[in-house]
Amino acid sequence: MTDTQSNAYPSITAIGITGLPEILDGDNLGQMIAEAAQNQGTPLVEGDILVVTQKIVSKAEGMLVSLDTVTPSQFAREYAENADRDPRLIELVLRESQSIVRMDQDRGVLITETKHGFVCANAGIDQSNIPDDDVVCLLPVDPDASARRISSEIQAVAGISPPIIISDTFGRAWREGHVNFAIGVAGMDPLKDYRGTDDANGRILHVTTIAVADELAATAEMITAKAINVPVALIRGMPYQPDAGSTAPLLRERTRDMFR
Amino acid sequence: MTDTQSNAYPSITAIGITGLPEILDGDNLGQMIAEAAQNQGTPLVEGDILVVTQKIVSKAEGMLVSLDTVTPSQFAREYAENADRDPRLIELVLRESQSIVRMDQDRGVLITETKHGFVCANAGIDQSNIPDDDVVCLLPVDPDASARRISSEIQAVAGISPPIIISDTFGRAWREGHVNFAIGVAGMDPLKDYRGTDDANGRILHVTTIAVADELAATAEMITAKAINVPVALIRGMPYQPDAGSTAPLLRERTRDMFR
Repeated sequence: MTDTQSNAYPSITAIGITGLPEILDGDNLGQMIAEAAQNQGTPLVEGDILVVTQKIVSKAEGMLVSLDTVTPSQFAREYAENADRDPRLIELVLRESQSIVRMDQDRGVLITETKHGFVCANAGIDQSNIPDDDVVCLLPVDPDASARRISSEIQAVAGISPPIIISDTFGRAWREGHVNFAIGVAGMDPLKDYRGTDDANGRILHVTTIAVADELAATAEMITAKAINVPVALIRGMPYQPDAGSTAPLLRERTRDMFR
Repeated sequence: MTDTQSNAYPSITAIGITGLPEILDGDNLGQMIAEAAQNQGTPLVEGDILVVTQKIVSKAEGMLVSLDTVTPSQFAREYAENADRDPRLIELVLRESQSIVRMDQDRGVLITETKHGFVCANAGIDQSNIPDDDVVCLLPVDPDASARRISSEIQAVAGISPPIIISDTFGRAWREGHVNFAIGVAGMDPLKDYRGTDDANGRILHVTTIAVADELAATAEMITAKAINVPVALIRGMPYQPDAGSTAPLLRERTRDMFR
């Protein structure tokens, strides 16, 4: 466990990383983040965790797709017409998915399981914060690998390889409003296991495995949404369990899931 | 909007409130929290948001129930026997619920919609951090009212009435691991609406309503889980939209929900 905390009370600080330019295909995101942190007076230190929004990772990896290049299938065309959506976008959603979880043309809802295993609307494809109206942004092909690469890029310039969470904003079952989830993890265990540990009364806790990577992503959203062009948050003071890291432990196996 | 931020970069700090005693029925929780914050050198200031874990709210409101007082129905007895659970606990879960969302005796899973409208396992009833083995803890009857009361109690001693989130730890569809959710809200809008606002490229954003109360709860979990006996987190530097506050906007109407 790493804990930079020295006060008598626990505390965690989330700091937005500002000053990053528009990210382009091929950019060394790790280096840019480390330098931006340095430039704003909050250089990365041992124990920091970085949460990087999916959009800039996708941009650095060339995951922008012009809709002009997409020929929709008949299935995509028919759904899109009934749902009043762009058939080229629907085609891309289908291509990025391994299964359809819910599809309702009346409401225009298309919730799928992406090839990575994330259950979300429109396979995580979106159009916000992209300069061109006919261009959309796909999720990274392998966000865990993206997270590992960013950590290595930071190691090369800053001498430390912080845990990296790549975050995206999804809806949920049962509740309104979106929150951020971890879609890529490197350098830390995404789950924190309290099973078998004592509670404050010395009783063995029944549950509880906490999805700490998702909670870190949710925390970061509050920072990255506070201002425009703050696509990265640094979380300082949060102990974590070092690990190769992966989102796989966060994804419930289909056979164990009662909600698809 | 309230924003205590003065740096060139955005930042948010989450501080655990320590030194609270075991909470008893009738305790003035707001006063105790304000005094504990003062005592540890982090007195509450204007703009702070407090996240209070459900367990201490329930304890202050006398929501502990001895299982000895519960006579299970035949339905509860039969499910409990097949699922290898305590029939008295199952009886309480059913009493606290307005509908059953998933019930699987082989896996011992009982996911219901509570009378408040929360979809969660076992109606949010649990046994951790309770001194007596045969006693369980129910959710507060009206957690929004609890949040308002705590804010008023703080107003009486500290002169400010911070937004209050009451949090509890639930599982999710599709993903492993629990996270904290808001089950009670006072003093702030639980949703942050980005619909109709410009993104960084001046384009109108399609989505997105963020469940900021849930993200605050998730952030607080990382603090309250860092140490034993830290049942409250203070979030400093997070702008919020003042509002009477309620969890109702966070709960998807049954007719709009594709996952129950």
